[in-house]
Amino acid sequence: MQAITKGSLKMDGNGIIQVPQPTPKPGDLLIEIAASGVNRLDLHRLNTGANDLILGVEVAGIVLENHSTDPRFIPGTRVYGIVQTGGYAQQVCLPADQALIMPASMNYVEAAAIAENYLTGYQALIWLANLQEGETVLIHAGSSGVGLAAIQLAKSLKHAKVIATASARKHTACYAAGADLVIDYQTTDFAAAVLAFDTHGADVILDFIGAAYFHQNLQCAAIDGRYILISTLSGSQVEQFDLRQIADKRLSLIGTLLSPRSDAYKAQLVQAFTADTTLLFADGHLKPVIDSTFDFANTKAALEYMAANQNIGKIVLTH
Amino acid sequence: MQAITKGSLKMDGNGIIQVPQPTPKPGDLLIEIAASGVNRLDLHRLNTGANDLILGVEVAGIVLENHSTDPRFIPGTRVYGIVQTGGYAQQVCLPADQALIMPASMNYVEAAAIAENYLTGYQALIWLANLQEGETVLIHAGSSGVGLAAIQLAKSLKHAKVIATASARKHTACYAAGADLVIDYQTTDFAAAVLAFDTHGADVILDFIGAAYFHQNLQCAAIDGRYILISTLSGSQVEQFDLRQIADKRLSLIGTLLSPRSDAYKAQLVQAFTADTTLLFADGHLKPVIDSTFDFANTKAALEYMAANQNIGKIVLTH
Repeated sequence: MQAITKGSLKMDGNGIIQVPQPTPKPGDLLIEIAASGVNRLDLHRLNTGANDLILGVEVAGIVLENHSTDPRFIPGTRVYGIVQTGGYAQQVCLPADQALIMPASMNYVEAAAIAENYLTGYQALIWLANLQEGETVLIHAGSSGVGLAAIQLAKSLKHAKVIATASARKHTACYAAGADLVIDYQTTDFAAAVLAFDTHGADVILDFIGAAYFHQNLQCAAIDGRYILISTLSGSQVEQFDLRQIADKRLSLIGTLLSPRSDAYKAQLVQAFTADTTLLFADGHLKPVIDSTFDFANTKAALEYMAANQNIGKIVLTH
Repeated sequence: MQAITKGSLKMDGNGIIQVPQPTPKPGDLLIEIAASGVNRLDLHRLNTGANDLILGVEVAGIVLENHSTDPRFIPGTRVYGIVQTGGYAQQVCLPADQALIMPASMNYVEAAAIAENYLTGYQALIWLANLQEGETVLIHAGSSGVGLAAIQLAKSLKHAKVIATASARKHTACYAAGADLVIDYQTTDFAAAVLAFDTHGADVILDFIGAAYFHQNLQCAAIDGRYILISTLSGSQVEQFDLRQIADKRLSLIGTLLSPRSDAYKAQLVQAFTADTTLLFADGHLKPVIDSTFDFANTKAALEYMAANQNIGKIVLTH
């Protein structure tokens, strides 16, 4: 008879229901979850009625069983990482090659706040944009989870000059994360502000906004600039686009989304990220910004709070 | 007193004039030119009145003096390569780190037909698009100089499935260069034809056409596709464009132009190209397509012929 554990299968109603215990495959770790990160993908899945799966893509916890051949993950090891589904639960299976080991100085709430934001930021800045030492980076939505992670990563890994955009009340968080200049996009033409700060323009742009920022992004991009398009929150319809802006500046416009990538890709990303960041997390140069924690029983309230869009930093569920 | 040699400083009139002998700098080779490639850049410079420089960016010839520290370039060595200016002349200075040594099987006309087209194609396919073994490549203007070079390179270096577009009378040349499918863009929707040939779509697109092909290129690009924009011959104004096409397929739209790159970049490109292609040129897997040769005294006629756009393959001046 299959063991039963708790999970949040359907969020329409009281939230927590009984689900079967997950069944590890070869290569998996079975994890007892201590904290789960809350992500927009969860909201999206909830709103689009993906009710046949357990929500939650980001977890931190302790290894119960190691079904991989990697001897580092003995039971009791504290780990964190991204799962395809099932992160809002007591237990989950995490492929060992996508698991990150928690430094001793890190707690579970912090660990549950890292993987999605920092892996997305790392992939965009290092793998896709190939950020070089001392380059100028423009990070839109600088106070978002990925935004704050990207500011820290650009500073810590490449000593970049970091410019962020954010609404006025979120500027402090961006500066605290290491931004050199924060622009209030509600009152300021950010392209002009970027060029005033650095006439060379932005070597790398991380954008989540889309159509509303498209022309200004092209305007303030540097020669050989890399414009990474992670999301299109403002909409995606661009009017009147001159391809010579791409050609003349030799720009790269690169669309990306981490979630649908293959397991093999994610495993490689985790290995590269671990090699580059473990010491920086241990010594505090990289430190996730936590907005708030909710008890697992209040998962629904946590998602409603995220939907209200008032958080600065990560929302985390604790068990 | 400075020595005098022949060069084509101004093309308005009789063409050939007397110019000072070039003065080598440290690192240069002084070359006696045997053949010069004719390029669109020459036409462009002529038409925009860049009359203070000697036309010609592509040469093959023999080393007269080696002012570099590279012992391979002893006087008498047959070399070819790209210069910033001064290629339509009896002598020119070529930086040694951008010079390629001619295999014994190669003649000067062939050598003068290689550098611009093959380096552009190599840079686009290998450096920018990171073409992988067996991928599907769509090469527009397949019968152009760069197009034919790119077809050969994609086949020889990566065994790619190569689709080209060209007008009907130029299909034979594309197939001879190795294309698996050639599409008549004047009668056929190329995006539909690409997807009919490979439902997966094109992993890599090399485009010289610009706005007129933009939407179809996005339509037939594969997931994780790389769309390299080398020129915008049809114009560059795109009326409307949905950024989700970039985001959903995780496309990279990459603008490039080789000529204005730094000498250091070009030197690195030449080294990588040499390592990857020397044997393929020597054994005939890579072989430039020559349309016609003109005597140096008829430079003006050669440029008029290029402007008429009827050539298939390279136009070369011989001395």
